[in-house]
Amino acid sequence: MVYVDVGANSYPVYVKAGILSDVGRITRDKGIKKALIVTDNNVGPLYLKKVQSALVEAGLKAFPLTLPAGESYKTISAVELIWEAALEATLDRKSLLISLGGGVIGDLTGFAAATYMRGLNFLQIPTTLLAQVDASVGGKTGCNLRKGKNLVGAFHQPIAVCADPSTLLSLSEREYCSGFAEIIKHALIASSHLLELVENNLDLIKKRDLTILTQIVEENVEIKAKIVSQDEKETGKRALLNLGHTAGHALEELGDYKIYHHGEAVAIGLVIATQIACERGYLDSSYLSRIQALLCSLGLPISPHEEISPEIWWKRTFADKKQSSGQVYWVLPKVGGLANYGEKVEFNEFAKAVRSLGKG
Amino acid sequence: MVYVDVGANSYPVYVKAGILSDVGRITRDKGIKKALIVTDNNVGPLYLKKVQSALVEAGLKAFPLTLPAGESYKTISAVELIWEAALEATLDRKSLLISLGGGVIGDLTGFAAATYMRGLNFLQIPTTLLAQVDASVGGKTGCNLRKGKNLVGAFHQPIAVCADPSTLLSLSEREYCSGFAEIIKHALIASSHLLELVENNLDLIKKRDLTILTQIVEENVEIKAKIVSQDEKETGKRALLNLGHTAGHALEELGDYKIYHHGEAVAIGLVIATQIACERGYLDSSYLSRIQALLCSLGLPISPHEEISPEIWWKRTFADKKQSSGQVYWVLPKVGGLANYGEKVEFNEFAKAVRSLGKG
Repeated sequence: MVYVDVGANSYPVYVKAGILSDVGRITRDKGIKKALIVTDNNVGPLYLKKVQSALVEAGLKAFPLTLPAGESYKTISAVELIWEAALEATLDRKSLLISLGGGVIGDLTGFAAATYMRGLNFLQIPTTLLAQVDASVGGKTGCNLRKGKNLVGAFHQPIAVCADPSTLLSLSEREYCSGFAEIIKHALIASSHLLELVENNLDLIKKRDLTILTQIVEENVEIKAKIVSQDEKETGKRALLNLGHTAGHALEELGDYKIYHHGEAVAIGLVIATQIACERGYLDSSYLSRIQALLCSLGLPISPHEEISPEIWWKRTFADKKQSSGQVYWVLPKVGGLANYGEKVEFNEFAKAVRSLGKG
Repeated sequence: MVYVDVGANSYPVYVKAGILSDVGRITRDKGIKKALIVTDNNVGPLYLKKVQSALVEAGLKAFPLTLPAGESYKTISAVELIWEAALEATLDRKSLLISLGGGVIGDLTGFAAATYMRGLNFLQIPTTLLAQVDASVGGKTGCNLRKGKNLVGAFHQPIAVCADPSTLLSLSEREYCSGFAEIIKHALIASSHLLELVENNLDLIKKRDLTILTQIVEENVEIKAKIVSQDEKETGKRALLNLGHTAGHALEELGDYKIYHHGEAVAIGLVIATQIACERGYLDSSYLSRIQALLCSLGLPISPHEEISPEIWWKRTFADKKQSSGQVYWVLPKVGGLANYGEKVEFNEFAKAVRSLGKG
């Protein structure tokens, strides 16, 4: 169990195979009597009954809501469906919303929980690797606007996160691999140990061994929890978590969110940031090859499928919402599992890194 | 100037005729460079240019957005229009949303500010009496769902509130009078002085004298600020502010929000709560006549236009969202400008109060 220390809103993250069966006890112990479980039509058929039974056995009333799966449904209309279902189920401020699914379901349900009756309890059950190591920890919730991703949202910490690594066994190969981009990101910004743990256990990782997955998820949650607890509302150090995302987000956008999964775009973004850091001498140049080899072994891309002009890509990095007053700040990795945030990068550095992609 | 003390999010409320012209300076002093002013088609034609000029003269970029006026537009669709206008105006987390109008515009704009990019600066310019003495102070923001009022929202404190009593000169008689229900409510829960101030200045109040209005608004803001600072998120004492609202909200609902303005329904709710309190001996029975006379003098109703069965009315009080686990808690006034919250009221007490309405 990892504890996320955010003052009065602190909460535990349970990482354990089989934890789904404990959701009822965890919830009942907090005095909650009524819950709405929000899931999607991919995840619902696999785990909804299990979670609902666990709640009912613990004496709670548990209502289900299944939304269509996919990023294109991450809209305010989906949030409205959750609000309306909450009202239908007569939830009040002491009730609970539970998200059962990946990042999209977690963000939507969290935002509904942040705003229904000005805030009620929220519990996350992340079922993808990406959601377990990243999205479910930190309290960021929200949805997309027609003209931009994640432009609407709120910080709303859950009362608990229950991450069951055995749910990772049902992921497609592509979705499973995508999750490793954020894991490598966490390793780069905070932990040489995690980097070596992944490098030294590639076979077990490919077999989705539950022992190594539990260890990896837990170490990731620890890293993210530590950063979030130092900067809950993203006014400083939390920016470290954007490593690989400046170029990565821009690439996702250029592909209209259809060509690259988030983790795939972030993997390529990590290569670019590492390349720039090596050029600057922040890292030994052998480090770039090491990261490229690791990402490849994990089934992640290290260059775009088609050549992209550095000018067009660069321009897109300025459309990201984290910009303030036109300046884009980068995160660059450094020796020893550390990184700097707030770095200014010049176009020629970026262009050089882009041109050398796939020529490693 | 009144200071609302809510820790790190504390802010000033300026109550001054002519303060609209100072909005530019107040905003610039906080380092803000870009603002979106949200107003409605009643208030916009009167004050939008003035506020926009004040901002531009202080060196800010100021964009306008005019929404249709009225409670029926207090929807998530209206909030979406604000989000989209904010994006169009390229607002970022350091920019500002300004509400210029009554309670509906304040709540919608505040909710957009709470959620656009997970929260940006918000400044309130309330232009109705109700908004100046009540809605603009305390950080409650939100919108309605199809099936219930104010079911969606967030606590989001503004960086400042600028209440200009001279905007009250343009209100219709009915809207002006409605605002006094919340004023009498504040007097009942916290201030014999305010009650006497209103009673002793009815002529000046009818003439909308700016000196007395400034004093009244300021005393109200002080009362609300004190309660809010003791209980920002409404977990305890803030419930006091619901005096008159248990029966009042139910009455508004019974009239489908078409028959009674909010203040009118609250006025009748205040009479019912006062009657119950007198019956219980919390107050001398002469107090009821005093409150009824005062509300009448202020142009407010003290009984429904048509007889309503106590059974139907009582049932509606249970539909209010503040209920938790089926119990409705009332606020009842006591001797000396005080009140109790968390009171259980029996149906027969309520029915007796309802039956005696209009028979004072």
